[in-house]
Amino acid sequence: MNKPFEQVRFVMVHPSHPGNVGAAARAIKTMGFHDLCLVAPRFPDVLEQPDAQSLASGATDVLASVRIVPSLEDALAPVTLAFALTARARVLGPPVCDIREAAQISCQHIQDTSNARVAVVLGTERSGLTNDDVALCQRVCHIPANPEYSSLNVAQALQLAAWELRYTLASAASVPLLPSTEGQAHEGDQAAPGEKVQAFMTHWEQAITEVGFLDPAHPKKLMPRMRHMFGRNALSHDEVDMLRGLCTAMIKAARKR
Amino acid sequence: MNKPFEQVRFVMVHPSHPGNVGAAARAIKTMGFHDLCLVAPRFPDVLEQPDAQSLASGATDVLASVRIVPSLEDALAPVTLAFALTARARVLGPPVCDIREAAQISCQHIQDTSNARVAVVLGTERSGLTNDDVALCQRVCHIPANPEYSSLNVAQALQLAAWELRYTLASAASVPLLPSTEGQAHEGDQAAPGEKVQAFMTHWEQAITEVGFLDPAHPKKLMPRMRHMFGRNALSHDEVDMLRGLCTAMIKAARKR
Repeated sequence: MNKPFEQVRFVMVHPSHPGNVGAAARAIKTMGFHDLCLVAPRFPDVLEQPDAQSLASGATDVLASVRIVPSLEDALAPVTLAFALTARARVLGPPVCDIREAAQISCQHIQDTSNARVAVVLGTERSGLTNDDVALCQRVCHIPANPEYSSLNVAQALQLAAWELRYTLASAASVPLLPSTEGQAHEGDQAAPGEKVQAFMTHWEQAITEVGFLDPAHPKKLMPRMRHMFGRNALSHDEVDMLRGLCTAMIKAARKR
Repeated sequence: MNKPFEQVRFVMVHPSHPGNVGAAARAIKTMGFHDLCLVAPRFPDVLEQPDAQSLASGATDVLASVRIVPSLEDALAPVTLAFALTARARVLGPPVCDIREAAQISCQHIQDTSNARVAVVLGTERSGLTNDDVALCQRVCHIPANPEYSSLNVAQALQLAAWELRYTLASAASVPLLPSTEGQAHEGDQAAPGEKVQAFMTHWEQAITEVGFLDPAHPKKLMPRMRHMFGRNALSHDEVDMLRGLCTAMIKAARKR
């Protein structure tokens, strides 16, 4: 487990559907987190319910380590920076940001504060967080969804928030986000240097002339356009070699007449 | 409907679970998109199946306007920049980025190209996209999830990709765009759509075969490598026209023997 990922807690306040708790466990695990806390769930045995188990899928370890507490104060006891994830705007309340900004603020906080603990707090499926819940958080954050249809369920909202945190934390820790292809890296895939590309362009000009496409008496803008097209993206060593093989074949075919 | 949001299509290749199609419709609608295209779904009546309807929830309008086509080529016919969203790394294939970079590349493409159409292509639930599917896309993109547990289903993957596109497109739209180049824009400089590029690749294969470069009995990886090379940067209409002129010249030269 990566250190900053241990410093993030997800809190669901009064969840009523066991399936959503299972889906939440899965969502946070896919993003590398594992700390899920439930505040007074509707069903005390929510973790054992079949829907929770089946929707958690391979994240039953997260489900098994879920903390159940009686109040949001308890859930936030060790937390140094809590975000209330809400859909509704509040007239009076903590400063508002979106989930990407929340991830950046969290990341900065974790870097600056040795004992940092960040929480993302979600409300009930039906009514969201109360003003009292929000008041226990330092910040409010939103997911700027389609205003005409912002129907994200709690697991989806949590998935997006966890993704934003993962992306920002991993980038900051310069943890490689994509699997390394180091082992597969092949020298031929590297960009060819300018002199190799120029030698190919000379060969190419000869080949397209010999097949009768480029008329040296009326070259128009063919070669500048070819240069522009091939040059837009760096050609690799292997690609230049392949294209030179094609040049040779074109010239040979043209001379066989 | 916001203009750039109309320029993005989501494509599901061979979806087998109607519930996933419904959830996908909902996911893209929450992010402000509406163009969903299915390639040869397992159930031809997938849109009418109860699971599709119930998981689409309030997005039945998106479901009702879903296009069903027989092949990925058809789905990408009007598309100028397609991303294959895959979990597996490919040894040979289009350049790889993550979904945030994909959103940024898409946004830039939409700003630069008046007829831009971007697609995000997802594979089947079980096996993902084939190499042939990926070869029809200009880019591969990944969701850098937890490497120990990256179990995102297609609707969740699509939700995250749609979110990234929404966030980037919406941010870009609120920033004053670069001075319009409408007056100077030359239609031939615009990116060629997928069907035009595919027709050129067929012609190119014929041309490099006739000059004796491609041996149909031993094609090696020549065509995938050619696709990869030409696909890396969107070819313009004028470039495709130029290259087709070259194909014709090559075939003529080879046949003059």
